[in-house]
Amino acid sequence: MIPGPTPVPEKVLQALSKHPIGHRSKEFQKLVESTTKNLQWLHQTQNDVLTITGSGTAAMEAGIINTLSRGDKVICGENGKFGERWVKVAKEFGLEVIKIDSEWGTPLNPKQFKKILEEDKQKEIKAVILTHSETSTGVINDLETISSFIREHKTALSIIDCVTSLGACNVPVDEWQLDIVASGSQKGYMIPPGLSFISISQKAWEASEKSNLPKFYLDLKSYRKSLLNNSNPYTPAVNLVFALDEALKMMREEGLNNIFMRHNKHKLAMSNAIKALKLKLYADEKYLSPSITAIKTEEMDAEKFRKIIKDKFDILLAGGQDHLKGKIFRVGHLGYVNDRDIITVISAISNTLLYLGKISTEEAGQALLVASKYLEIN
Amino acid sequence: MIPGPTPVPEKVLQALSKHPIGHRSKEFQKLVESTTKNLQWLHQTQNDVLTITGSGTAAMEAGIINTLSRGDKVICGENGKFGERWVKVAKEFGLEVIKIDSEWGTPLNPKQFKKILEEDKQKEIKAVILTHSETSTGVINDLETISSFIREHKTALSIIDCVTSLGACNVPVDEWQLDIVASGSQKGYMIPPGLSFISISQKAWEASEKSNLPKFYLDLKSYRKSLLNNSNPYTPAVNLVFALDEALKMMREEGLNNIFMRHNKHKLAMSNAIKALKLKLYADEKYLSPSITAIKTEEMDAEKFRKIIKDKFDILLAGGQDHLKGKIFRVGHLGYVNDRDIITVISAISNTLLYLGKISTEEAGQALLVASKYLEIN
Repeated sequence: MIPGPTPVPEKVLQALSKHPIGHRSKEFQKLVESTTKNLQWLHQTQNDVLTITGSGTAAMEAGIINTLSRGDKVICGENGKFGERWVKVAKEFGLEVIKIDSEWGTPLNPKQFKKILEEDKQKEIKAVILTHSETSTGVINDLETISSFIREHKTALSIIDCVTSLGACNVPVDEWQLDIVASGSQKGYMIPPGLSFISISQKAWEASEKSNLPKFYLDLKSYRKSLLNNSNPYTPAVNLVFALDEALKMMREEGLNNIFMRHNKHKLAMSNAIKALKLKLYADEKYLSPSITAIKTEEMDAEKFRKIIKDKFDILLAGGQDHLKGKIFRVGHLGYVNDRDIITVISAISNTLLYLGKISTEEAGQALLVASKYLEIN
Repeated sequence: MIPGPTPVPEKVLQALSKHPIGHRSKEFQKLVESTTKNLQWLHQTQNDVLTITGSGTAAMEAGIINTLSRGDKVICGENGKFGERWVKVAKEFGLEVIKIDSEWGTPLNPKQFKKILEEDKQKEIKAVILTHSETSTGVINDLETISSFIREHKTALSIIDCVTSLGACNVPVDEWQLDIVASGSQKGYMIPPGLSFISISQKAWEASEKSNLPKFYLDLKSYRKSLLNNSNPYTPAVNLVFALDEALKMMREEGLNNIFMRHNKHKLAMSNAIKALKLKLYADEKYLSPSITAIKTEEMDAEKFRKIIKDKFDILLAGGQDHLKGKIFRVGHLGYVNDRDIITVISAISNTLLYLGKISTEEAGQALLVASKYLEIN
């Protein structure tokens, strides 16, 4: 129950363990064709969606270095570890960063984006880089509103880390006109880590013609050229593509709305059960990520709490990162997660709190009742 | 029977299909520790050996961009498609390339390296970049001799593509003092594509302190820092690491010398059988790669020949790349390949030649006899 690698269905593991085939074979071309089509479905877009062998960070870096040039001015939204990382990437490549931040656990304020973008009459801002669902804090940023301000600016591209939102909640790439959307296989995709995905708008391709940042492995034009032939410029992780094909078929079978509703009810069950257990949510309750619930442990050491849950129940929860280490733990409910998994983790947390003498049996029962209400199994 | 993805043992496929574990867990740290130790054994080195999620191209790019700076002068050896690629990478990152080339199918001439390196009294040459085994032509370059000249220069680093030599023939990294050695999982490692490896000498780490080329995902210092804690800076392809661990254990069981002898006898069996079949080797016979045999088809269309072998025997052979398309086909005998595989592919080629009326039954029989002699199954 960590926010990635997420659980992988047996069917997908079986696909993964097939003998690899030649990446220049007709059979593999068919796989590239079908996964590309299904990736466009998942992204709700007609844009190119490219598959890269690498982590989500590689995909975000690719989005940045393919569309921008040294000295370009960009806005970076920063309210967690991943927001921080994109600031680092932007600076490493010589971009001029205007930071819009907010305290970890709180969402970015869309009005700040609006103001800076509106004031930029010279259209010097070339991109707005931000994280949709902050895996480190369990906060979801209001991408719909922020992206509307980016669209109004007209020049700036949106470069969005949707690593823990895509495949968990609505990210309608064409409707919101998102230029670059990056995501990773070990999240909503229900497959092991190793692949990342990047959707690219026509506007972003046009910007790429002017980009002067050096790149080779992450030069997306090579991927676009190869994709015309349903191929790859370099040897891709063939077996992970087998797994991707299977997982995307499962997602199509479930349907986008059902996937989003499932994640939403799990978020509500988790967060409300946590409150019934007298624990506090780390993230602003109006901006809870559908994928991760971050929980404050206050006077308890979160690392010790995680260890008890691991030792007693063999359930791995994520810890806090950087300054949050020991202060929060995080429950991932992203990808191949069902109601039973949610009830199980709530029960394990309740049981541990009972064992530590932190709650009453009445409170433990209340948590289960509240969760069940949201899961609609009553 | 292509030079990658190569055959994967069942045991390794089973390891691959295990449920992923958290990449920040103690269990995964143990895997990183054990695979790193075994990678050092395979590279015959005490140097750091880093694992990257990405292709061999990513590893070569990492070697180049971590140790060099814009404007640096480098020698690139070029006698095939991969040599060509490293010239492109070097130019993309603003390096000044001195090209030493030789016709495809022939080896690079070590004396040319000696001459240019000796004449560089100002020590302006910062690196020598070359491919050990050229997958596109089946030629192995004389790395032992070339690396001795690089050592004598003292300033220049060696940045070597050992993608189809490492794990197939002797690449003693410490003995030859190779600074950067890049390789990929889908080759001698016997696992599917998706991981690449890079060994880095102390001298290369020192050079990295001065490198000014921008990088983030491929910044090797982040990998080195994480490795101190048996970890990774970004989410690695966890399941491929399961497979790597299993494959490296199998390699240790077989032993380096046995692995090298097996590849050598397969090379000799293939090349001599090909000659008995009146076909011509594409590569200079004194410089045959242990991993790939490239075969000229002369008046026959190599693509049609490959198609017959695929359709009749379900054996995939590799075609020629770029201007060699249709003119040669390539047999990969790299990684998890045994004597039976070699006899099988020779028989399939013989059978096709018989079917096309190109050889006599006597010649087909001779090819098998010659191969058997080298395989020592008589």
